Amino acid sequence: MYKLKPAVVTVDPHKLGVRPTYAHVASTIGSGASNVVMTAGQVGSDENGKVPADAADQVTLAFKNLQRCLDASGATVQDIIKLVYYIVDYDHNNRIHFGPLKAFLQGHRPPATLVPVPCLASPEFKFEVEAYIAIPQQPLREVDVVVVGAGLSGLKSAYELQRKGYSVAVVEARDRVGGKTWSIENSPGDGKVVDRGAAWINDTNQTESWALTQALGLQSELTVQNTVGNIVQQDVTGEISKFPYGSVTGSDAIVILRDAAENLCQTIDIRDPVRTGGTHLDALTFSQWVEKTMKESGADEEGYKTALRSATIWTNAMLGLEPSEISALFFLNYCKSGGGLLTMRSDQKNGGQYLRFHRGTQTLSIGLAGLLKPDTVLVSSPVRKIIQTDSGVRVVSARGEFIAKRVIVSVPTPLYKEIQFEPALPVAKAELGRLNMHGTYNKFILRYSSPWWRAGGLCGMLMSFTGPACVTRDSSTDVKSQFSLTCFLGGDKGKELAALTEAERFKLVTSQVKATLGTGIPGGPAAVPEPIGFTEYEWSKDQWAQGCPCPAAPPGVMTKYENALRSTHGKIHFVGTETSYEWKGYMDGALRSGIRGAEEVSKALELPKL
Amino acid sequence: MYKLKPAVVTVDPHKLGVRPTYAHVASTIGSGASNVVMTAGQVGSDENGKVPADAADQVTLAFKNLQRCLDASGATVQDIIKLVYYIVDYDHNNRIHFGPLKAFLQGHRPPATLVPVPCLASPEFKFEVEAYIAIPQQPLREVDVVVVGAGLSGLKSAYELQRKGYSVAVVEARDRVGGKTWSIENSPGDGKVVDRGAAWINDTNQTESWALTQALGLQSELTVQNTVGNIVQQDVTGEISKFPYGSVTGSDAIVILRDAAENLCQTIDIRDPVRTGGTHLDALTFSQWVEKTMKESGADEEGYKTALRSATIWTNAMLGLEPSEISALFFLNYCKSGGGLLTMRSDQKNGGQYLRFHRGTQTLSIGLAGLLKPDTVLVSSPVRKIIQTDSGVRVVSARGEFIAKRVIVSVPTPLYKEIQFEPALPVAKAELGRLNMHGTYNKFILRYSSPWWRAGGLCGMLMSFTGPACVTRDSSTDVKSQFSLTCFLGGDKGKELAALTEAERFKLVTSQVKATLGTGIPGGPAAVPEPIGFTEYEWSKDQWAQGCPCPAAPPGVMTKYENALRSTHGKIHFVGTETSYEWKGYMDGALRSGIRGAEEVSKALELPKL
Repeated sequence: MYKLKPAVVTVDPHKLGVRPTYAHVASTIGSGASNVVMTAGQVGSDENGKVPADAADQVTLAFKNLQRCLDASGATVQDIIKLVYYIVDYDHNNRIHFGPLKAFLQGHRPPATLVPVPCLASPEFKFEVEAYIAIPQQPLREVDVVVVGAGLSGLKSAYELQRKGYSVAVVEARDRVGGKTWSIENSPGDGKVVDRGAAWINDTNQTESWALTQALGLQSELTVQNTVGNIVQQDVTGEISKFPYGSVTGSDAIVILRDAAENLCQTIDIRDPVRTGGTHLDALTFSQWVEKTMKESGADEEGYKTALRSATIWTNAMLGLEPSEISALFFLNYCKSGGGLLTMRSDQKNGGQYLRFHRGTQTLSIGLAGLLKPDTVLVSSPVRKIIQTDSGVRVVSARGEFIAKRVIVSVPTPLYKEIQFEPALPVAKAELGRLNMHGTYNKFILRYSSPWWRAGGLCGMLMSFTGPACVTRDSSTDVKSQFSLTCFLGGDKGKELAALTEAERFKLVTSQVKATLGTGIPGGPAAVPEPIGFTEYEWSKDQWAQGCPCPAAPPGVMTKYENALRSTHGKIHFVGTETSYEWKGYMDGALRSGIRGAEEVSKALELPKL
Repeated sequence: MYKLKPAVVTVDPHKLGVRPTYAHVASTIGSGASNVVMTAGQVGSDENGKVPADAADQVTLAFKNLQRCLDASGATVQDIIKLVYYIVDYDHNNRIHFGPLKAFLQGHRPPATLVPVPCLASPEFKFEVEAYIAIPQQPLREVDVVVVGAGLSGLKSAYELQRKGYSVAVVEARDRVGGKTWSIENSPGDGKVVDRGAAWINDTNQTESWALTQALGLQSELTVQNTVGNIVQQDVTGEISKFPYGSVTGSDAIVILRDAAENLCQTIDIRDPVRTGGTHLDALTFSQWVEKTMKESGADEEGYKTALRSATIWTNAMLGLEPSEISALFFLNYCKSGGGLLTMRSDQKNGGQYLRFHRGTQTLSIGLAGLLKPDTVLVSSPVRKIIQTDSGVRVVSARGEFIAKRVIVSVPTPLYKEIQFEPALPVAKAELGRLNMHGTYNKFILRYSSPWWRAGGLCGMLMSFTGPACVTRDSSTDVKSQFSLTCFLGGDKGKELAALTEAERFKLVTSQVKATLGTGIPGGPAAVPEPIGFTEYEWSKDQWAQGCPCPAAPPGVMTKYENALRSTHGKIHFVGTETSYEWKGYMDGALRSGIRGAEEVSKALELPKL
């Protein structure tokens, strides 16, 4: 992995004074070519257009929005060469912008101008900031293959191709490798890691994940997911019940639905889902299928509703979407890709959530990137254009251009729109990108000084019909004394929560945890300790994910376009966990798709030699 | 003809919203080198410094002024990478800038910042806009010859040189070929074309125009200028008289002047005008010569005045200048270049205004450009520097640089100042550029549903001592049902009119037309229909013409500098209609000069082979 050195060099002229947040001069001296990026003035409105009344809150939001502009252009704060702020009701004795500005700049000091103004474009705006940015450009690189995206699928493709002797460059939009594997420490160096994204593997049917774990020597750094004790269920009325992990809740309806889904998905051939599952199944939303199934089983209205609530937990927690949004065939085939509904949802041996990494799943991505030749992965360099010519493919990224014989695109289908393809993507491919949906997904992780819920005989898993979290799981790493509960906020409930502030979400989530795993449960602790910290990540707001964990199809899309999911576009190949037959949405699917991509490319590149 | 793709790429970051007039981010990603252009803040004042009281009018004017900045830098709206507007008395509920802004941007959405301010540099200013521009740069091109300017003279040089096997690039400031040939349809695709600039050729003594017409197969697309019926004359008192085309007005004075001018100009050798015409003639203005001539003829004060008025119509309509501004020798030699005063002014066989093109004269330019090799003409790329070195000539244009063995400059002398020559132009050449004047010239074209003036027995020609138009002509293309009167606004009267608004000019011109060709004339129609449309073009305001139709010399310039008109400057050659011996100011002169330039260059390039 390599980063280009920032092009921007600041200078403090003699006798002009050194300021904490700005230098008087900046240039790109000595950096060769650089690319100028300009932003519109950013104001303090959130993505729903809401503008907080408090000017200080607006300042914070405006810098968040400016950060979005940086992200979209592959810029970092260090690439800013000039800032201009406009402030309404500017008070010399109360410089409300100073704190957020300093936090935003992380020590960088671009030249800046502060402009007090009588008002801004809308009467409620109190602050606006615009940036001029200079992004350094590396010289043109020629390689056999460019891989777009340094998530697990892209890294795996790159690794397999380099092993076969091809020259490969990986171009990544983010400032890190790993895509939706992203592991962070509580505080730098404390080793108490949680996963903001993908968190689990297993060591049996997730063969590629396990092989990589072994190759990286990470077998000794695994925690078995805790399933000792009771699961708590929170009813739609808020009523709480518990049952041991491995048994089922008392509801017949849920058992009926679960068995029907499991049985049906076992009839689907993941390599031919539309034919084996049937277009009739793809014509239904999953909620329509639930209704149909429950009615056919003779369940009453209450039974159907309970079943639908359970189905909602499944799709909320597994895809961040509602049962009414996705095709029944898509969901059942998705489950089947992980062995079936039961296996995919299981936290035990062979299940989807079995083993966690002490240092988080990003160790897989970082480890895989580490197996690549030096200077293979260029980060902070979103690809914006892929141009095919007679002689090859030109890949245009924020920090430089590449010429390649073949290109592997490893971004999720809904993000194809961020890349301008010349010639344009075929209709089927473009429609997949337009129609496939990423879910709303936020892992809200509460850190504690101890796993207090275990004392109450609980495994830490909650399944809730009310929310805010639809599911919680014990995500502790005991050997590191890292104790945490990961709360899944997804689907429509997740969207509602996304409109709140982080503090509001914290309050709601901790209340729910207390009420369900703590004082609210018979036999629970008399008092629940306050979290020692928390972290959340709203994947739907992320520029380069735009949702999580795996794109899902509404009714009809598989029938029309499933055969385009893995098809090539000239010299461009497509990988990513959603394109895998097995373990879609999981790291194992990503790795498997990466292998397929590498095979396609090496076959194509070998051909002329025959 | 080729245009470079804009370098500016806009991006809408995830969750920041898509706006109608701006994107949040723009860069020049994937465009290689681009050239940054910055403008001063543009306010809503006209070229006389007048600032309309209405803020909305100021906005419109400010964008017009910004367009001038774009024109001067060879930029198009699509090259804007950032806009900042400053608005006084900003009213959130009445965004007066929005309409003009949207019209100006033509769908482009550069990042923008709106800055309400308490006031601007002058108290009357209500709006200011500044632009940051990024112009894409093509890689260095090496050719045998660079031609600067894609008017008829430049295109002809390029064509002749390519025929001889030389590699040629033509670099044009405008976004089109044709220079002062510019033909526009009434509405796209309707085929009802009028000429904003040059409009006529003949098929006898304009040998090069006629040869090109034939070469392009345009002989069947010609209209003979209508001279059937009476000419109308509008006296200084406004009194109207008429006389058949081909006869003369009743005034003896005009006949005396006309004959004297015709006789004198026939004594001039266009290849040696200063010696044959005499420096004494170059020491006089044309009005001084008129005065002298009339006095010597025994004419009284009234006769002299009438003659001078007639002379004013000639120079106004032929050069957009006053008789007092130009050298008598220049004017008479100019007439002689077109066969003499009578021939040049004639609308009949052998005359200057005999044949028009159904699709306008620009078909000649477009046709000639079409005979060049692909990618010969780079448009929207004003040349700003021409640097001669030992090894060749470097031509620096807005969209890239060229290296050539020889350069042909085809811009009018008054525009030499727009190019920085290294080494500098010799004094004589520079003085020609400084002293030669382009006229004030506006072809105000009224479109009608029928040629109603013909019913009154009129040919459509008016000669007026009062104005606003000094001359009108029937510019209809009957076979296309395109009916129009072209009204010539030039000279001092033209300057007065240029200070008015278009609407005001329209009112004045239509009133004059009604009064002279319509209800005001005995035997004229009872009512004159309203125009169904109109178009005007003020050539004096055009960045790359700065006047029209042909640069003219004040007294003394020919005596001192005539011999520098066609002289080379090192490896730089100069063409253009004014440098022609024959048909100066006409397309035929442009083509002839182009041939001369090509001959000079090919001779120079052949020399080393001997």
